[in-house]
Parts: sequence; C-alpha cells; structure tokens
Amino acid sequence: MLSFLTFAGVISMENIKIAVDAMGGDNAPVETVKGAVDAVNEFGANIVLVGIEDVIKKELEKYSFDKEKIEIVNASEVIGTDEVPTTAIRKKKDSSIVVGLNLVKNGGAAAFVSAGSTGAVLTGATVIIGRIKGIERPALGTCLPTTKGFVFLLDSGANVDCKPNYLVQFAKMASVYVENVMGIKNPKVGLVNIGVEEEKGNALTKEVHGLLKETDLNFVGNVEAREIPFGEADIVVCDGFAGNIILKFAEGLSTALLKIIKSEITAGLYKFAALALKTPFKNIKKRFDSEEVGGAPFLGLKSLVVKAHGSSKAKGIKNAIKQCTIFVENDIVLKIEEKL
Amino acid sequence: MLSFLTFAGVISMENIKIAVDAMGGDNAPVETVKGAVDAVNEFGANIVLVGIEDVIKKELEKYSFDKEKIEIVNASEVIGTDEVPTTAIRKKKDSSIVVGLNLVKNGGAAAFVSAGSTGAVLTGATVIIGRIKGIERPALGTCLPTTKGFVFLLDSGANVDCKPNYLVQFAKMASVYVENVMGIKNPKVGLVNIGVEEEKGNALTKEVHGLLKETDLNFVGNVEAREIPFGEADIVVCDGFAGNIILKFAEGLSTALLKIIKSEITAGLYKFAALALKTPFKNIKKRFDSEEVGGAPFLGLKSLVVKAHGSSKAKGIKNAIKQCTIFVENDIVLKIEEKL
Repeated sequence: MLSFLTFAGVISMENIKIAVDAMGGDNAPVETVKGAVDAVNEFGANIVLVGIEDVIKKELEKYSFDKEKIEIVNASEVIGTDEVPTTAIRKKKDSSIVVGLNLVKNGGAAAFVSAGSTGAVLTGATVIIGRIKGIERPALGTCLPTTKGFVFLLDSGANVDCKPNYLVQFAKMASVYVENVMGIKNPKVGLVNIGVEEEKGNALTKEVHGLLKETDLNFVGNVEAREIPFGEADIVVCDGFAGNIILKFAEGLSTALLKIIKSEITAGLYKFAALALKTPFKNIKKRFDSEEVGGAPFLGLKSLVVKAHGSSKAKGIKNAIKQCTIFVENDIVLKIEEKL
Repeated sequence: MLSFLTFAGVISMENIKIAVDAMGGDNAPVETVKGAVDAVNEFGANIVLVGIEDVIKKELEKYSFDKEKIEIVNASEVIGTDEVPTTAIRKKKDSSIVVGLNLVKNGGAAAFVSAGSTGAVLTGATVIIGRIKGIERPALGTCLPTTKGFVFLLDSGANVDCKPNYLVQFAKMASVYVENVMGIKNPKVGLVNIGVEEEKGNALTKEVHGLLKETDLNFVGNVEAREIPFGEADIVVCDGFAGNIILKFAEGLSTALLKIIKSEITAGLYKFAALALKTPFKNIKKRFDSEEVGGAPFLGLKSLVVKAHGSSKAKGIKNAIKQCTIFVENDIVLKIEEKL
C-alpha cells in the first residue's frame, strides 16, 4: 500500500523544527504532547510545542526523551472549534494557533501541525504565512483509502466556490506533493465528474477539463465518484464542496457499512464467526483510520501547515509530524513554485 | 425497513396502464419482458410493452400470463447509451423511448419505465411529457440505503448547475413523493452541506438554507455527508452534481469495501468464517441492491417516468412498475401541484 509512511526517501531530521499546537483537538494536551514525544523517540524529530507552558510541562513530565529535541513556546489562549475563525484569529493573538503560525512565518519552525479548529487553522495560515506566488487559493488535501492503496483528494473542503484556474493549481500542487511525499512518479490526475466523457459535467468541470488537458500533468480525464475507491487515479481534484462531501461520505458510509455487517454477523447463528473476524476487521479499520495517514496538508502556502483530525490521538500527531518532515526535506514549496 | 415496497396503502391496479421500454437496458429484452410478466402475475399490473414487436412477442411466448394484461406497441428503433440524447430524441421518432413517452403524453399509459439511456429518457421526458407548472427543473430521485432504512436523494444527477429555487422545488416534490409513495408522514428534509451550522456552505446552499426555512416543510437543516448513511433525514436535497457524486460514490465505496472485507476474511485462517458469512453477506448485498428499490423517479413532470438502472434484471423492472402504480394511484402529480 502506497503512502507517505512507506516513502523510502532519505530523511534527515537535523535542523528541521516542527511546531505542534499542543492545545488543539479533542484529546489535547494529553495526546498532542504524547505524539510529539513519540516523534522524538521514534524518529528523532525536533519539536516546538506551542501552548500553555505549565500544562505542557506537566504533560512532558510523564515521559523520558532527549530534552534538547523539544522546546516549549508559551501561548496563553486557546481557540475553540465553536469560534468564528476570522474573529478568533484577529482577537486571540496569543492563541496556540496564531503563535504557532507566526513561529513558522518568522523561521522559528519549518511547519505547523494542529488538530484544532479547521477554520481557524486555514484562515490563520493564509493570513499569517501567506500564499505561494501564483496560487490563488491554498487547498486542503486528504488521503482516501482505495482497494489499491490511497488516492489524494484536493480540495477536500477549504474552497467551496471555485474558479476553473483554482482546480488546475490544485492539480499541480497535488502532483508535486504525491510525487515527492508519497513517492509515486508522475502520478495520475483525475477530475471528479459525473461522467467519463469530456463533454460531461457542470460549468466548472467542463472548463477545467479543457485546461487540464493543456498542462504537462499526467491527466487521465474525468473520474466518476464510483471509480474513486478503486484507485484508478493517484490524485482526484474537485472544488472543496464536492471534495468535502466525498471525504465525509466516505467516513460515514464505511462506518455505517461496518455497523450493518456487524449486526448481520452477530445476529443469531453467526456469533462464532464474529469472533474469528476480529483480526480482519481490525485490519480494515486500520485501513480507514485517519491516524495512519497523518494529517491533511494545506497546500499552496509559503510553508507547510498540516491539519490533523480533531479526534487525533498520539499516533495521528506523530504521523503528521513525520509527514511535515518529509515535506520540508523534499523542498515541496520550491517544487510547487517551479511547477506553476 | 421503510420503502415503497412495504407501503401499506390500498393499490387498485384496474385502469392503470404502465408503459415499459422493452428495448432499454443491458439485459433487454429478456429481463424487461420478464419483469413485465412478473408484475402481471404477482400483482395484476396492466402493461404496454414498447419496442420491436416481433422481438417482444418471441419473449412473451416463454411465459404464461393473462393475455389481456399485456399489450404491445411497436417501435422500430432503439436509442443506444452512447448516443447524444438531444439528437437521438429528435431523430429517432420511432424509438421505444420516444414512442413510450408519447403514449404517456396521449393518455395511452399513465407512466413510463425505462432502463435505457438516462440522458435520452430525461431529455425526452421533459420535452415530450412536459413539466408541472411551477417546476423549473424536473429532478431524478434515488433511494440510498441507511442503517435505518432508506434516504431519498433529490436531485441525483439531472441538473448539474442549479439555482436556489430549484432545490426548494426538489424539497417540495420529494416531500410529496416520500409521504405518499413511501408512507412516511411529514418526512424530514435535510440540505446536503459541508457543515451543520446555518452559515456554512457554498453560495448555493447558503441561499437555499434560508429559503427552505420559510417553507412549511419539515426542514431539519443542513446534513453533512457523513450523516447521510445513518438516516437522520428521510430526504436530502442537493444539486445534481453533488447528488450524482453521492449516488455513485455510495455504489463504488460499498462495492470496494465488501471486496476488501472479503479479501481480508478469505486470507489464510479465516476461510471457515467466510463460509458461515455467506448468508449475512447476501442480506447486506440485498440492502444495497438497486433492484430492491425499483427505479429512480423523474419528478416534476405531468406524468411519472421511472428510470430503472441500466443493469436492471426482471426484479428491478417489476419493482419499478409497482412504484409507478403506487405513484399514479396516489395522484402524486396533483399533490405536487398543490404543494407548490
């Protein structure tokens, strides 16, 4: 199964510092701090934990690790998921999200990981870190499991109303990301559409199809949603409204389906089979586990920002840190600039 | 599980004739003709089979049934799924789709069922049968399985670019359909969106949300795609681009997931469990089987047109015929007119 976690490139952790929002997410600070410690102990990451210093220190006391590899930068405020992103970013200057993003902007860290409010992270990142020249809209990428491995979906929710050019830029950024971070040479790019024929689609996709054909990308044409789970394309691009529907529907449907299967199996006669199925079901859950694939990279900014799932545990945070390191090590920002 | 198949209303088949496209679909004419015969034998339907007379007669010879209940209307041409719908409808005046739709228009049948080209059926139906006054765009409805039963999705692909008013009309038509054909009183209507909060969404959904709140429908607000498979709403409305993605992704993902599960189970030690799981898996497949829920009603026309799945077998055609009969018997067109 291809993913950045199996990427075989050389990673040197020296001098690459990753800022981690210690206060963001449902399981902060316990799991965020543990994830950072695990990243230090497992692959020698250099971390800056951003958040309320006393709280972080107390968490760190639980573990043993190389003290030189974790710094703390104090941030006294926390942005909640219920706050209006633009207002929160403007008013809470000393929040872990704003402080962490400023740290990246000022060179104190190379990338930022947060499991906090998606809206606040995206808005803050665009305002504070800024866009790569030539990118009109940064976009959020996610990895969806397929029967063959993973497909990289961009945009999965940052831009709900898109112009044709945005999608072409998404395709270029995704190609650089998937080639360099996930190790797939010349990745196949598909356009999410309601039919495979070129003339199919809504006003947006019809125009995007023509534009993508003119690029030097490995554009494989329209991909119907039915085909996405079979991994015919390495990348699928769409506007953030469609992408968010795909992402969330995948989550809901797979959960619902496993629930239905379980209820069918445990009904009556099949109970003994349910026992035998514990391991295969665990394997399947692992495949659909967002923790396994790290976080969602917010592509198109001058530095990398990774949005980890709100319910991330230590493993999810650790993998998001790993993902950042590979991204930075491979000069993805520079490569995106070159691709444009 | 709620569906029109369990609807307990009184159905009188007398005087209701349903026109069936004998030539449409991957398994025509064998399965289309068999489906019509089954509908006659199982619940006394009155059928007009439309298509090449000799071919239909030859198929009918295989079965015994009440000869008074099946008529044949000859149509010498067939529209293929690869033809451009508008051109095909205009040029093939003697095709089973055009002849069948004209039959409905002229009162020779009350509804039309076809498993043929979706584009040709939708285009032809709008042009030949015409819209209900006040409906700007007819829409295609489908039933998706949920953990609780079914959810009715409108539009699932007829209108890829929508104005806010279209979606309000979809919600009204769907409410009438689900209440009267599926027997759910005051059905809950959700708007497919990327967040539950009112202010979330793209330009279209933000405006539709406000409009739906002003109706007398049982509007339950935004529904995230994640929640759709859990059946919190009886109806979900969206534009045809998003709807088609949901419909096709559900099909693809459930197939992919069952494939993954099977491969996990049959690997190595779990083979004996696979045997025991044959029945539960059959039950699950049945739940996701489009044949079980009949066809997709094309709502908003002066008469009902049902698009059966292209791969329909006899059961799918038979259930689509049953669906038509319930629709006609319950005066759905009149009720939609009243609702507007």
